[in-house]
Amino acid sequence: MISFESDYTTGAAPEILEALVKSNFEELSGYGSDEYTQRAKKKIADLCKVESSQIEFLVGGTQTNLVVISTLLKDYEGVIAADTGHVSSHEAGAIEHTRHKVLQIPSHNGKITSQQLKQYIENFYADENHSHMVYPGMCYISQPTEYGTIYSKSELEQIHGVCKSFEIPLFIDGARLGYAIKSFESDFTLEDIAKNCDVFYIGGTKVGALCGEAIVFTKQNRPKNFITSVKKRGSLLAKGRLLGVQFDTLFTNNLYFELSLNAIKMAAKLKEIFSKHNFQFYLDSPTNQQFIILENSMLEKLKQKVKFSFWEKLNDTQTVVRFATSWSTKEEHLQELEKIIEEIILN
Amino acid sequence: MISFESDYTTGAAPEILEALVKSNFEELSGYGSDEYTQRAKKKIADLCKVESSQIEFLVGGTQTNLVVISTLLKDYEGVIAADTGHVSSHEAGAIEHTRHKVLQIPSHNGKITSQQLKQYIENFYADENHSHMVYPGMCYISQPTEYGTIYSKSELEQIHGVCKSFEIPLFIDGARLGYAIKSFESDFTLEDIAKNCDVFYIGGTKVGALCGEAIVFTKQNRPKNFITSVKKRGSLLAKGRLLGVQFDTLFTNNLYFELSLNAIKMAAKLKEIFSKHNFQFYLDSPTNQQFIILENSMLEKLKQKVKFSFWEKLNDTQTVVRFATSWSTKEEHLQELEKIIEEIILN
Amino acid sequence: MISFESDYTTGAAPEILEALVKSNFEELSGYGSDEYTQRAKKKIADLCKVESSQIEFLVGGTQTNLVVISTLLKDYEGVIAADTGHVSSHEAGAIEHTRHKVLQIPSHNGKITSQQLKQYIENFYADENHSHMVYPGMCYISQPTEYGTIYSKSELEQIHGVCKSFEIPLFIDGARLGYAIKSFESDFTLEDIAKNCDVFYIGGTKVGALCGEAIVFTKQNRPKNFITSVKKRGSLLAKGRLLGVQFDTLFTNNLYFELSLNAIKMAAKLKEIFSKHNFQFYLDSPTNQQFIILENSMLEKLKQKVKFSFWEKLNDTQTVVRFATSWSTKEEHLQELEKIIEEIILN
Amino acid sequence: MISFESDYTTGAAPEILEALVKSNFEELSGYGSDEYTQRAKKKIADLCKVESSQIEFLVGGTQTNLVVISTLLKDYEGVIAADTGHVSSHEAGAIEHTRHKVLQIPSHNGKITSQQLKQYIENFYADENHSHMVYPGMCYISQPTEYGTIYSKSELEQIHGVCKSFEIPLFIDGARLGYAIKSFESDFTLEDIAKNCDVFYIGGTKVGALCGEAIVFTKQNRPKNFITSVKKRGSLLAKGRLLGVQFDTLFTNNLYFELSLNAIKMAAKLKEIFSKHNFQFYLDSPTNQQFIILENSMLEKLKQKVKFSFWEKLNDTQTVVRFATSWSTKEEHLQELEKIIEEIILN
Repeated sequence: MISFESDYTTGAAPEILEALVKSNFEELSGYGSDEYTQRAKKKIADLCKVESSQIEFLVGGTQTNLVVISTLLKDYEGVIAADTGHVSSHEAGAIEHTRHKVLQIPSHNGKITSQQLKQYIENFYADENHSHMVYPGMCYISQPTEYGTIYSKSELEQIHGVCKSFEIPLFIDGARLGYAIKSFESDFTLEDIAKNCDVFYIGGTKVGALCGEAIVFTKQNRPKNFITSVKKRGSLLAKGRLLGVQFDTLFTNNLYFELSLNAIKMAAKLKEIFSKHNFQFYLDSPTNQQFIILENSMLEKLKQKVKFSFWEKLNDTQTVVRFATSWSTKEEHLQELEKIIEEIILN
Repeated sequence: MISFESDYTTGAAPEILEALVKSNFEELSGYGSDEYTQRAKKKIADLCKVESSQIEFLVGGTQTNLVVISTLLKDYEGVIAADTGHVSSHEAGAIEHTRHKVLQIPSHNGKITSQQLKQYIENFYADENHSHMVYPGMCYISQPTEYGTIYSKSELEQIHGVCKSFEIPLFIDGARLGYAIKSFESDFTLEDIAKNCDVFYIGGTKVGALCGEAIVFTKQNRPKNFITSVKKRGSLLAKGRLLGVQFDTLFTNNLYFELSLNAIKMAAKLKEIFSKHNFQFYLDSPTNQQFIILENSMLEKLKQKVKFSFWEKLNDTQTVVRFATSWSTKEEHLQELEKIIEEIILN
Repeated sequence: MISFESDYTTGAAPEILEALVKSNFEELSGYGSDEYTQRAKKKIADLCKVESSQIEFLVGGTQTNLVVISTLLKDYEGVIAADTGHVSSHEAGAIEHTRHKVLQIPSHNGKITSQQLKQYIENFYADENHSHMVYPGMCYISQPTEYGTIYSKSELEQIHGVCKSFEIPLFIDGARLGYAIKSFESDFTLEDIAKNCDVFYIGGTKVGALCGEAIVFTKQNRPKNFITSVKKRGSLLAKGRLLGVQFDTLFTNNLYFELSLNAIKMAAKLKEIFSKHNFQFYLDSPTNQQFIILENSMLEKLKQKVKFSFWEKLNDTQTVVRFATSWSTKEEHLQELEKIIEEIILN
Repeated sequence: MISFESDYTTGAAPEILEALVKSNFEELSGYGSDEYTQRAKKKIADLCKVESSQIEFLVGGTQTNLVVISTLLKDYEGVIAADTGHVSSHEAGAIEHTRHKVLQIPSHNGKITSQQLKQYIENFYADENHSHMVYPGMCYISQPTEYGTIYSKSELEQIHGVCKSFEIPLFIDGARLGYAIKSFESDFTLEDIAKNCDVFYIGGTKVGALCGEAIVFTKQNRPKNFITSVKKRGSLLAKGRLLGVQFDTLFTNNLYFELSLNAIKMAAKLKEIFSKHNFQFYLDSPTNQQFIILENSMLEKLKQKVKFSFWEKLNDTQTVVRFATSWSTKEEHLQELEKIIEEIILN
């Protein structure tokens, strides 16, 4: 059955598997000290073009969020995030598990505004009892957001500006960063991302790797003895090569961006198909995740033939579902999807 | 340069890479719900032959230790372990990071005795102030130990017996379990391990996988909502297939045990070489890690030609080093090692 | 200067100080094993009239909240609370510090409804991805709330009913419980409170004690080895007598309720004074905390003569402030307050 | 029955109770913002004579240890302590509860040496794998120790010297500090203590207060937003006056030191009595805790008439017990003790 369930349902870009096979019997030291890891770091740093970035690789997204947030926050601080942010709602309390509160603020289509952020922090300091409250110590945003939307370059600059004015770091969750950068509506590059935050990560898991996220500390601000803090959180991979080889491959010959672009192109076709057949979109997403409103009867029929994700009940007769394209989505998958939709409509 | 630095310096068994390539474009749901994962669990459960085991896969060893220990311990409990145990000394405080104390007891060649364990727990309950102390809530042992030694079947039974009498679980760290089971001195099988503890894990990372450890809860004792607790610790792999495919392959055609046996055979040859040339062993290890005492002058020369691990300074003129064979060590590596040693001795 | 700043600005009921003086040189064992503590527990249990309650004393409110919540919640659970609940906003993240998320739901005048609670939990279980989310594992409410409002007996029964139907405990923060019970609008007794929750506490700090809160586990549900968990959180008082003597005194001759009643009577007079002079109330509070809307010019003048608490800016010209009466408020304080107000108005 | 069970079995110095009564109806703001607290801080700072000390009051000893240690340690650090240190063994894992490991080193009569400390840290940094281990980030000692022994001024200077050379703070647990300073063998003052560490506390609970410990940060090194970190740990007392009034009293007219001296004088008499009757001491303690070896038959008889603490079984026929004098021990208690002993011996 064809699947648009998510962007992590296939394995890895063939180039990655080839590189793993090719390097397999090389004797490489562990924990990220191998040459592939070093080379991958160098390539990413070069692309980011910030003066003194520090790159580290971890295995997964929630892990990255908790490691970054808990090593950068001070004891008395929490992290501000959209109420729909991944750290707020879909990480089983991983941030709280590190003893820090997620300070949730309302979001619109997955996004928060610099104005909201500023207001939140100003209100905090204006409160006479703020020493009994959790200090806002970081801002977390996702690019693209959990709803597929993206922050424009100027929106990023404004949010970063507020963070700078209050001297708190801005952390960008880039679990699907490639899909944001290659969005047809994107007005920013990887370089712009690096310039406009204190730390972010380049998601591998959802963009063609078996696993792996590349954290970029943009201001020589990697926490001291970071490897020990990672180890302490059970997040240090023994065979660091697995991450090094993958990211070295992803950042060779522009592979990461080509994989990303494929998903964007396929998403455009998917939107076209649904639009053509008069489906309604829950919101306008310029990236690889599309949120579509289905009549429940249509939903029942469609899910017999194609995989997608339940998102939320909209009302008694309609449901929001998510279709995700990915680096591995092919034109023929979309042709088959269209055929299935047309058959259902006709019957 | 040939390397005996550790058992995680090469990639993965070729069969694993082939299986990853072959399954690469199959659409598989995430987080361990795929068929490969299910099949791997079934195979391991069948081998363990305990009535109602529950299998879960995680990425790495320290991660597994912290997830298992912190989800099984009660609030007021700590885990008893050898002072040389991995959780005591080489995990950067990962157990303490989960708010539990490691109750260290002295070890001999990496092992503790059932008698020591019993004494520790009896002393605890005899202390009138024990409500102000950390309750012993679990026993952790490594098989093989961090010094390559192994517990015999009867030693395991005795330790397990003490645990049962005090109603605390026995957890066996099997990061290198294959090397213990296939040791020429082993008198136990995987089944014996499963029968003689409450939870253990079968290490993949150090026995031919890219990553991955298979936890076996032997008594239907997997903590409730385990997946949520794993997620909360940032330890849930999105592409669960990466672990599923690997363990499915490792437990097909006896691969895991053959890989293990190779390391044992190579270790035997390595011992022979060092013995023949009158090197002293720090202790007698029947598994793939060999601890050898080197004169410092020999150490300096040897490390120009071959990689191995520093273990500890023995005295001003001698140093203990570790040579590890692995699933990927080849006869020719040992021949080259012997040649190197002989050349050094001759010059 | 007279003060309505809070209900913890004076020392303790004279009876308490007398009892401390009287018992001062008795040799009493530590950590709550003394007879005063035992007697106080007995008296409270007798009043609660639930079959098998267990009483424990701790020093302060935030401490009590974190000890109770973190020892009752399971690893994968969080606590549902009003967004204005003390644990949500004014404990500096104490609950998160114990690794658990506060699942905030919107409140009205400090209260949540049983319907909201039910909906929240139903939505959680209806979500297909709920294993990646924090399980609702407890409901926390304050009686009276942080806004001085109270839950009626039937509201408590309904909330408790929802909790029972989902098998999660209901925890009532009673930091000011006496003021709720003795409110003229109260339709419940201490016994009703005990019957309609799983655990609650009777606040001493804000009702005439130097410090101290009495936790009542109503269903023989005190966590095992509770004293060890308390010690581990740095919350075990060495001279347990300090709490024992105080609560023994508070629950002798109805003192706790008489102290509470005084605050309620004084609050009624305070409301009368403000009403008479046409001040607006932010909300209608039937307990000792009164929230009054002041013109900023009035606020400036008033605060020269009397102490009260800033609550929040209502708009550019008006501010919400809190006046709290307490067990120690006297008629003459109110007479003086009225005089001050009248003088300001006249000038 | 007379009691030498511990130094916290009676209430408080009468001067303290009088001060509490006297100040009882003063309206004082909460959380340590009252004038008594300010005055107490000033008095202690003046006595310590370090240029820029910062004083904070907490309720109890374990609480103080966990608050100080966990707010001063960095993420990747643990605290070095004697294996007999209070934080190592008798705080139910309170330090681990804050996610930090206690790095236990062997002790002699409760003490560690500067040489041991130096060796431990040097070994740590010499280990090639130390990034996988817990960094030594603080040294904790008790003055007097849990065995009543004291560090001389030069021993303190040496330990402090080692700490300075490795740039880690030295923290002195002074739960019974007065008894160390007033020991007849003491060669140091409060000023010397302050000069020779980074943070210490002056115990009130065991030296005549109802509760309370005064933390002294000696180098303007109080953690930022300390009050929030204290609140987050449930350790902030609402009626801060309770601590302020007590310490203000303790440091008025030399009361703290006079109370301490009483215990020392009484301990000297107690030693005399036991010596005279040929009892053996487990070790030579110059402070208020005396460790005596009792024949089990004597123990059984003695405990019918006088309270003391079981310490440890020495062998099958002998037991180590602890007799503690305190600020409230009187000559007549000792006379009675002697009478009891003589009667037992005679019969």
